[in-house]
Amino acid sequence: MLETAETGDTIDRESYEQALPDLRVELINAQYELQHADFPVIVLIGADDRIAADDLIDTLNEWMDARYIDTRWFGRRSEEENERPRFWRYWRELPPRGRIGVFAGAWATNPITEQVFGKRDRGGFKRRLEHIRRFEQTLVDDGALLLKFWLHLPEKEHHKRAQAAEKHRHRHWKFDEEDWKIYKVLDKVLPLCEQLVHETSTACCPWQLVETTDARCRDLTVARRLLQAIRQRLDETPSGTSQAPAEPAELCCGPLDSVDLSSGLAYDTYKAELLRYQQKIHRRSLKAAQDGRTSILVFEGWDAAGKGGAIRRLTRAMSARNYQVVPIGVPTDEELSHQYLWRFWRKLPRAGKVMIFDRSWYGRVLVERVEGFASEDAWKRAYQEINDFESQLVEYGFNVQKFWLHIDRQEQLRRFKAREKTLYKKYKITDDDYRNRDKWDAYVCAVNEMVERTSCQRAPWHLIPATDKRFARVQIARIFSRSLKNDH
Amino acid sequence: MLETAETGDTIDRESYEQALPDLRVELINAQYELQHADFPVIVLIGADDRIAADDLIDTLNEWMDARYIDTRWFGRRSEEENERPRFWRYWRELPPRGRIGVFAGAWATNPITEQVFGKRDRGGFKRRLEHIRRFEQTLVDDGALLLKFWLHLPEKEHHKRAQAAEKHRHRHWKFDEEDWKIYKVLDKVLPLCEQLVHETSTACCPWQLVETTDARCRDLTVARRLLQAIRQRLDETPSGTSQAPAEPAELCCGPLDSVDLSSGLAYDTYKAELLRYQQKIHRRSLKAAQDGRTSILVFEGWDAAGKGGAIRRLTRAMSARNYQVVPIGVPTDEELSHQYLWRFWRKLPRAGKVMIFDRSWYGRVLVERVEGFASEDAWKRAYQEINDFESQLVEYGFNVQKFWLHIDRQEQLRRFKAREKTLYKKYKITDDDYRNRDKWDAYVCAVNEMVERTSCQRAPWHLIPATDKRFARVQIARIFSRSLKNDH
Repeated sequence: MLETAETGDTIDRESYEQALPDLRVELINAQYELQHADFPVIVLIGADDRIAADDLIDTLNEWMDARYIDTRWFGRRSEEENERPRFWRYWRELPPRGRIGVFAGAWATNPITEQVFGKRDRGGFKRRLEHIRRFEQTLVDDGALLLKFWLHLPEKEHHKRAQAAEKHRHRHWKFDEEDWKIYKVLDKVLPLCEQLVHETSTACCPWQLVETTDARCRDLTVARRLLQAIRQRLDETPSGTSQAPAEPAELCCGPLDSVDLSSGLAYDTYKAELLRYQQKIHRRSLKAAQDGRTSILVFEGWDAAGKGGAIRRLTRAMSARNYQVVPIGVPTDEELSHQYLWRFWRKLPRAGKVMIFDRSWYGRVLVERVEGFASEDAWKRAYQEINDFESQLVEYGFNVQKFWLHIDRQEQLRRFKAREKTLYKKYKITDDDYRNRDKWDAYVCAVNEMVERTSCQRAPWHLIPATDKRFARVQIARIFSRSLKNDH
Repeated sequence: MLETAETGDTIDRESYEQALPDLRVELINAQYELQHADFPVIVLIGADDRIAADDLIDTLNEWMDARYIDTRWFGRRSEEENERPRFWRYWRELPPRGRIGVFAGAWATNPITEQVFGKRDRGGFKRRLEHIRRFEQTLVDDGALLLKFWLHLPEKEHHKRAQAAEKHRHRHWKFDEEDWKIYKVLDKVLPLCEQLVHETSTACCPWQLVETTDARCRDLTVARRLLQAIRQRLDETPSGTSQAPAEPAELCCGPLDSVDLSSGLAYDTYKAELLRYQQKIHRRSLKAAQDGRTSILVFEGWDAAGKGGAIRRLTRAMSARNYQVVPIGVPTDEELSHQYLWRFWRKLPRAGKVMIFDRSWYGRVLVERVEGFASEDAWKRAYQEINDFESQLVEYGFNVQKFWLHIDRQEQLRRFKAREKTLYKKYKITDDDYRNRDKWDAYVCAVNEMVERTSCQRAPWHLIPATDKRFARVQIARIFSRSLKNDH
């Protein structure tokens, strides 16, 4: 596949210099228009020719306005990066809408270097290609313009260059240790490049192969294609995404129906049981912290179902050094200018912490779905995106537990009224809460579908009957305490 | 000093429960008003009683609206944190304006645990207290409401508690390994706490000592003081900060006068010299990357002085994996809601990188000063703040080099005109650029003062004559290449 890049094309200096001024003007104009567009441009540069990648990046920065390009090169993973799933580092650096992010190497070449210089097995490599495809799909679905260029130097040119570098070390000063290291295992590297390019060339984001033998031709080709792609995307009339609110609530049945809301617990039993589990949580969370095992707890539920109180019963059992509660509210504008999972990726904790999300990424398929804040396409896609996200956490050894606190409509009303009577709880009740009540049935559907589509053994949903808060708190403490014991 | 906290105050359950509802209402109201305020609240909790700190944090989260409090606990520094100056981790987590950040331990207790369990010498401890004072001063000067509570358990209570924990292990389950570890060296820890509290109790941010023997009293005291401080600050009428633009330009002399703008270089010499330094930079930057030595290059200069071209001559010599160019443009809203240095702290690179800032934190004392975007107080304070910032970088082993590219007013006009003729450079010239020209003299003053007040041997300003771009580029390459060699 790579040899299809070997066209042998060249461009003479004169044509090059003739073409340049116009190209540069157009590139810069495109960049300026892009600033007001609602999508980011992500340029992934993979290469079996490191020097070419370096030079190309310099050229792009020269030809375009460097102030609006973020170039990121990804090398050896740091300890902090090692404590999170592999794609955390890329999520962190994604460009916001309206900007260009150039990713050098990154998820294109790191799997290869790890495969060659590390100890990954063949199965692991395949699995990573799968992650790449899903990651790219997620970005593209969110509207990102993702362009992937693979810079390829034909094998015989690799040999020629290495020989020249050996002879005239002084003249070929850019050919450094790193290049020698790669050159020595070129016969292993090239087939892996081939495989990666082949298997991650999907319909939504194919690799564009560019031969690097002729630098002028290489730079012009990439710049022109980049320009063309941005231009085309800018000129597309924005598709009138219908953000219609969800259908009038269907009456639907599902997992929520089977929750026994009459469950309760006597006060004495509650006290004793809670203490028992809190002690276990205390001990086990210290052990987990030492062993670097991370837990992610997700709390969702009806307004006034008792999320806060249940969370505090857990945190009271732990040391502040080991947990963090993350309440999910209105996103900042930095967060709004990225794919919706970005804000959660950026918050992933270091190894050994317990991270408690008070509301979470499930907002996408709950409130955003019901209120019509997300298009139907977007929330329907979200189940798969969320499953991918969580499966990366789980594969990385995180303990993921999700709680839905369930009460019925009457109980909620009772609690709203009670809250309004308690001065320091009044703030918890707003008109929004009453409005949400009107959409109860639509929410029931959304919750049922959410649980059905995103609960799995390794990242399970626990439906907690919460009419009796004591019962709910003990259940949650018990489940969390057990999960701390079982996961490895 | 700590024993002044030992008041022996207690509060009975009845008075406590009577006081609570009003206090909670007022706390929540204050929190809601705070959301629209233009300052952050930073609550630093230091303690010689870890369990009390944990409990207090839980209580604050219960009494207030947990959605608007960010609690951070800082433990052992990670590898990424170790690659930056000590305060990087705190800067990263500072709350934006309108929010409350609760820092547990952090810069209050980490110096102590490192002193006791690490290998720091006495001099290092003193130095860190100095950094703490400056850091806090910077936050307060920026308008943050910084409240520092030291939770103190009298020594005899420490002993009583430890004895009880030994006897009734089951009942005292919160007293864990970590507490035993501290307890065993209590005689070393307490004097250090004493010293830290004493020496970091400054006029702007004194420690408030709180005895922890009685939990109700402890929680009420902290909550009341927190409320009072926020309330008081909210009720202050905002001081009408006069953002008057700078005085009509004085004619002032200074370092810029001595720059020889007639310096030039013949083309052949230029080619040869540049190549020579580029090769050195290539080699030395690889070595620096291996050794983990970080370089920070700052580029400032007149519009059209040739910053971009000079930067590219450096990046062409390096591998994309080792450098990053950071163009400083308009801040995001997350950035605007923090102290102005926050955005630079958050960008500090990992060990071994070369970070090139195309414009920088010096905007504060240049454009923000001249255009009146920063108040006179703010930019006058900035020299000291910047010096502190850079001295932390330098002390941490970073190589810091700052370049001012200098041309005169006629040369600038010539270049503007030339740029307007080159289609792909036209975008670089806007009306703003002409407007800035009118303030040339004011800028000259600002630059002179900046260089005089922020140049030092370890983070020097280099004034580069840039009438001849070739000369400037070679100078910069030479200086950078040497700095790569000399720094350790």
